[in-house]
Order: sequence, then structure tokens, then C-alpha cells
Amino acid sequence: GADEPSPAAAPAAGAATEGLDVSQEDGVLTIRLNRPEKFNALTWAMYTAIGETLNAAAENPSVKVAVITGTGKWYCSGNDLSNFTKNMPAGGPQEMASNGQKVLNDFCDAMIKFPKPLVAAVNGPAIGIPVTTLGLCDLVYCTDNATFKTPFVSLGQSPEGCSSFIFPRTFGFAKANEMLLTERQITAQEACDGGLVTRIFTEDRFRDEVDKVVKHMASLPPQSMRISKGLIRQEVTEKLLEVNKRECEVLRERWLSDECMTAIMNFLNRKK
Amino acid sequence: GADEPSPAAAPAAGAATEGLDVSQEDGVLTIRLNRPEKFNALTWAMYTAIGETLNAAAENPSVKVAVITGTGKWYCSGNDLSNFTKNMPAGGPQEMASNGQKVLNDFCDAMIKFPKPLVAAVNGPAIGIPVTTLGLCDLVYCTDNATFKTPFVSLGQSPEGCSSFIFPRTFGFAKANEMLLTERQITAQEACDGGLVTRIFTEDRFRDEVDKVVKHMASLPPQSMRISKGLIRQEVTEKLLEVNKRECEVLRERWLSDECMTAIMNFLNRKK
Amino acid sequence: GADEPSPAAAPAAGAATEGLDVSQEDGVLTIRLNRPEKFNALTWAMYTAIGETLNAAAENPSVKVAVITGTGKWYCSGNDLSNFTKNMPAGGPQEMASNGQKVLNDFCDAMIKFPKPLVAAVNGPAIGIPVTTLGLCDLVYCTDNATFKTPFVSLGQSPEGCSSFIFPRTFGFAKANEMLLTERQITAQEACDGGLVTRIFTEDRFRDEVDKVVKHMASLPPQSMRISKGLIRQEVTEKLLEVNKRECEVLRERWLSDECMTAIMNFLNRKK
Repeated sequence: GADEPSPAAAPAAGAATEGLDVSQEDGVLTIRLNRPEKFNALTWAMYTAIGETLNAAAENPSVKVAVITGTGKWYCSGNDLSNFTKNMPAGGPQEMASNGQKVLNDFCDAMIKFPKPLVAAVNGPAIGIPVTTLGLCDLVYCTDNATFKTPFVSLGQSPEGCSSFIFPRTFGFAKANEMLLTERQITAQEACDGGLVTRIFTEDRFRDEVDKVVKHMASLPPQSMRISKGLIRQEVTEKLLEVNKRECEVLRERWLSDECMTAIMNFLNRKK
Repeated sequence: GADEPSPAAAPAAGAATEGLDVSQEDGVLTIRLNRPEKFNALTWAMYTAIGETLNAAAENPSVKVAVITGTGKWYCSGNDLSNFTKNMPAGGPQEMASNGQKVLNDFCDAMIKFPKPLVAAVNGPAIGIPVTTLGLCDLVYCTDNATFKTPFVSLGQSPEGCSSFIFPRTFGFAKANEMLLTERQITAQEACDGGLVTRIFTEDRFRDEVDKVVKHMASLPPQSMRISKGLIRQEVTEKLLEVNKRECEVLRERWLSDECMTAIMNFLNRKK
Repeated sequence: GADEPSPAAAPAAGAATEGLDVSQEDGVLTIRLNRPEKFNALTWAMYTAIGETLNAAAENPSVKVAVITGTGKWYCSGNDLSNFTKNMPAGGPQEMASNGQKVLNDFCDAMIKFPKPLVAAVNGPAIGIPVTTLGLCDLVYCTDNATFKTPFVSLGQSPEGCSSFIFPRTFGFAKANEMLLTERQITAQEACDGGLVTRIFTEDRFRDEVDKVVKHMASLPPQSMRISKGLIRQEVTEKLLEVNKRECEVLRERWLSDECMTAIMNFLNRKK
């Protein structure tokens, strides 16, 4: 329950996963994507570990605020496309797509349900799901060299992270669709002007400024904080769970489509 | 059905209507308001032809993207007020108002239901319904000399094009009401900052830049495009159809009110 | 009924309340917070009088537009915390909290239900409920030295004025939460960019510019104005009444919590 202390739970869940560092200090839980050589691309294991870490932290009263950030120059380059080509399960693409659907669904559900302030500290460029899931965070700080791109259609895929719902509400349709349908990469300033980003800090001050905010939040009355977040999210939480489910179902079908398979093969061949 | 090619359908529907040019190239259907001497004001026939063109293009797999734009200096000066004074039907104002309600309802329904990217290329000033229906488009590009004005109340009328619903969601109430209730004309920059417009281009680059975007979209995997737009619009489509119906019903009553009749007579007399 | 003139009703309701001036000119009802020595902080009596004034003005056809503004340098410094310490009722804190819940609920309900344009003329800094209730106004004009702050969590409290619902819709979650959860004070420019404020005027032109807009609105066809506002608010009015009720219930519980009592005692002691 929420009142039983279990301080070791959160760090333990993440510590065992390659590419992920989890630490806690002064009530602030930090989940750090730590695969700089892959621009912090997300493996299936990382999605699962982040979700489990958040679920444990939700119940851990020593955690007041959670922060997601990246190591190195990038925040996160998105879903690691080798998720689709390595370790094909016995059931083939069908099983792989079903597994992927469940992994993504659980990952986003954990963010949607997290009852304390969830902060994204976007330390550099982001592509795909680390962009879309910013709408599931409560606060989003970024460096002035961060960029945001969501190239789903050209990869034969479709929006996730509840972006199909939250982006139009945040940016309006005209700008949400520029990201989701024309796939234009937007700048930190455009993301901030559009309301996806709380504030921009220069790279040299970024870590200190985010630290200051999250420590301040961790020092405020925790019940008032939780209740206030609950009020703010109340009208939208059930809807987000429903949108997430729908997006992941559509994505499973997309992954098995000719459009998607062709696009991913082309992409992986281009990289060679 | 969506899979039966009927490449001639869309152009045929519009070609016969005075004031409207419809053409198609590289998967891009262009609907051009072409009454520059009337600032591209919309006649009842033009509304109907635009709706039918979109409905046909929805089913035509050779159409990947649709664009609405205007000829000359103006995008569109709105509803041609002579719609209310010319060709009075046998049933008098009552019948005219009912006819107008149906024409507007069908016009907006066609935009709401269009399943592929719908782009407004706003080549100059816009007043009234070409402004409100921008919220029904997926992407809105405008020139830097475009302006946006919605003077419904002073004409004894009320908002249409689902603006009563989409404008507050896009701009917030404070700015939506500046347009809808104080009737202030806003600039291209204000419309873009507020989220109604995707991006602004200078007049000399406008056509080329819009062409580039729409051709890019027309080249992307069409099923992913359609499915992605479907996800983005899913939460709002039924609501928009309902709002459109309500707005058109209210407008029919407004057209028969003393406030509206007096305002239109004053407006038409001033122009003489 | 709406058609029976009762020109004296509105002024009469407010005239008797200390700290509140109510006047009417050319169809514009002005509700002026007039406790400059207390930065126009709101007493329980002021909340009630404002609500009753709006309810009377709703039925008074001579009122076309209502304006809320403040006297002096401040717009309003929020809920007068001495509301919680002076005049403790016989039933003690429980009764005080229940009374406060009802007062706030009725106050916001009156703003939500007001059927004519409701304008906030924010003449200077605002803290707390005068900030949150801006989302219940149709138009918000402010001076360039206005600031906006909502320090609920640090006072052991939670958002009201429907801000838990309207702020995320207006600003997006990322910026709404900066105000509601990190409690950062934002500038006039930030409030305007985010969509909470319609426009900013310099202090020397502020009163004249607001007068011009409200007189213009008061001169427009009143039925079209009322019907247009009704359409714009239709999708959200029932939801706002429900959100308001929920926020006030939560706030009653918060007022009785240790977190809140401690925070208010600390605040009042610091001021001594």
C-alpha cells in the first residue's frame, strides 16, 4: 500500500536492466536512459523496467517526484528497430507484434497512472516514443539544442504514447499534424511555444535548473501534491488508458503490414 | 468503396460549378476558390460542389491529399451575402433559411468526414466561414499577409464551422472569444501563435512551400497516413458532427431573426 | 425572467458589501474589488456579493457585459487567509470548512453560469483564486506589470476555480503544471502566450483600451451575443459545474488537513 515504506524497491527494479540507471536522492527518483552509443534507443527490456520502476515508485512513500532523462548528447532516439529483427519468438512476427503491443501498452499505462509529479528532463534530441510520451509527463524541461520528431507514417506505423489524443489538445490540430502527419522536426522553441515543453534551459545550466525545480517539488506537502495532480489528471486518465489501448492495438496491426515491413527493411538497409 | 479507382469523379464534380476549379496532380487534389472579383465569396453552389468533391475524393484511391486554396489576393471573403437576397425560394425566408442550414451542414460534414489529409493553403485574407472551417482542416499554411476575422455577432449571426468547439480548444477561451465575440481581426502571426495555423510563408515562397509539403505527404504510405489521421480525429469526429448540426440549427434561427435581417440590410446598403 | 428590466438589482447587491464597488454605465456592469490596503484580498462576504451581483445581472437586460477589476496596484491577492482565523463559527473548523466550500462553489458557479460576456480587467498582480477563475471569464485583459501565481500545494491546498480542468486545456499539461505544481509565478507575456490572457496593454492605456472593447461588445446585437456565448460554452458548462463541485469538496478536506493547518499557521506567523 501507499503508506508502507519500501525504499529499495524502485532502484532494485531498474538496476538489473542494461541501458537503464535508476537512482534516488532527497525524494527524487531518477530514471536515466544510459545507452549513449545507441542514442539511448529503447529495448523491450528497458520499456518493461521503466514501467516496473514507476509502478514500484508509485507505492513507495520515500519517492516524491520521478525524473526521466538520458545520458550523453541525446535524450532518446526512440524504439530500437532491432527490437523487430533480433530474438524473433517461436510464434514469428505475429507473436512479436503481440508482445510489442503489450510491452508498449504497459509502459504507457505506468506513466499514465503514476500519481506523483513525473518530470521529463530532455537533455537533447528525441525521436518517436520519447517525444509522444512527453504528453504523459507532468513537466517537461529541455535543453536549447533539443529537437522533436515523430516519423511514424514514413515507417508504416502510427502514433503512440497517447499523442493522437494529447498532441491535438496541446498544439491544436494544425501543429500536431505537422509533427504527426508531415513529420517535420520541431525545435525546442517550437515545442515550448506549442505547450509540449514547460521551459527551455541552456545546456550548461540545464541539470542545475531541473534539479532545483524537482527538489522544490519534493519538499512541498506530499498529500497536497498528490491530490492536486489527481485533480489535474482526473478528467483525462480514463481516456488516456483507452487511447493507449487503441493506439497499441492499431500499432500491432501496422507492424504486420506490408507498408511497415518494407519501410523498416529499407531503413535498416540504409543504415548499413 | 475505398478500393475502387474512380479518378475522374472528383474533378468532374467541381468542374461544372462557377467560381470553383478542381484539379489533380501527383495524388494531390486542389480545390481552388476562383471568384477573385468577389474575393472568392462562397455561393450556395460552391459549398455544395466542394462537399461533393471531397466526398468523391474520399473514395478515390488516386487522391492522397486534398488542398483548398483561393485565386488572387484573397483566400475567401466568406458567405456571399447575396445568397440571402437573390433567388428567394417560393417558401420565402423560412425555406431559404432551411436550405442554407442544410447546405452548410453538408459542407462542414464533408470536411469533418474526409479521411485523408486536408490542407488549407490560405493565400490571403479570410473572413467568416473560411476562417472557422480551418479547424476542420488537418494542416493550415498561410501567407504573411493573411488576416482572419469572424464578425458573426455584428451581423446578427453565430459561429459555425465548429468554431464554437474548436476555437476555444485551439486558442483557449480568452483568445477564441476575442475573435468570436469582440470580432477583432487577427494577423497571420497571431493565428499561428494561437495554433490555428501550422506555419506562415512569405508570399513569394508560399505556393512552392505548400506544394513541397503536400507532395511529401502524398508520397508517404497511404494506409499508415489514413490510419494515423483516423486515430488523431477519432476522439473528436462524432463531437464535431454534433456541434456542426447544432451550430447550423442555431444559424437557421438567427437568419430569421430581426437582429440578423436588420444587420444584413444595413451591410448591403452600406456597400451601395 | 430575462426580459423583465430590473436595472437597480445588480448595483444594489454589491453596494452594501465592504471592499466591493458595483456600478453600471452604457450596458457595462463593473465589479471592482476595492480593498487596496489588503491588495484586494477576497473576504467570504465579497465572494458572496460578487456571485449575487452576477446572478442578478444575468437576469437584468440592461446589463450587456460584466467586468471584474481591482482598485490600485493589485488586481487581487486571493483568498484572505484571515477568512480561516477570524469569526470561527460555533461548529469550529469543520463548520468553517463547510461554509467556505459552499461560498467558493456558489461564487464559481455564478461565473460559470453567467450568460453574457464576462471580462476580467487584470490591472496588476494576481495570486490564487483570481488567477484560477480567469478561465471562467470570456475575455481577460491585463497590464504589462500583471503577474500570475497559484501557490496551492505549498499552502497544503489544491486547485480551484476549475483550473484543474481549464489550465491543462489552455496551456497544455507542461505549462499548467508549472503553475499548479511547481508554483512558478508567470508574467503577463507568458500568460498571454499560453492563452489565459486575451491581450496585454501598457498601464497608461489599459483602462481606455478595455473600455473600448467592452463598450463595443455592449453595442452588438444582444441576442446574437448571448446565443454565441452559449454555443461557445455549451460543451463545457456542465463539466465545469461538476469540476467546480469536486474541487470545492477536495478543498474542504484539505482545509481540515494537518498539511494545510500547519502551512497557514506558518504563513500567518511569517507575516507578523
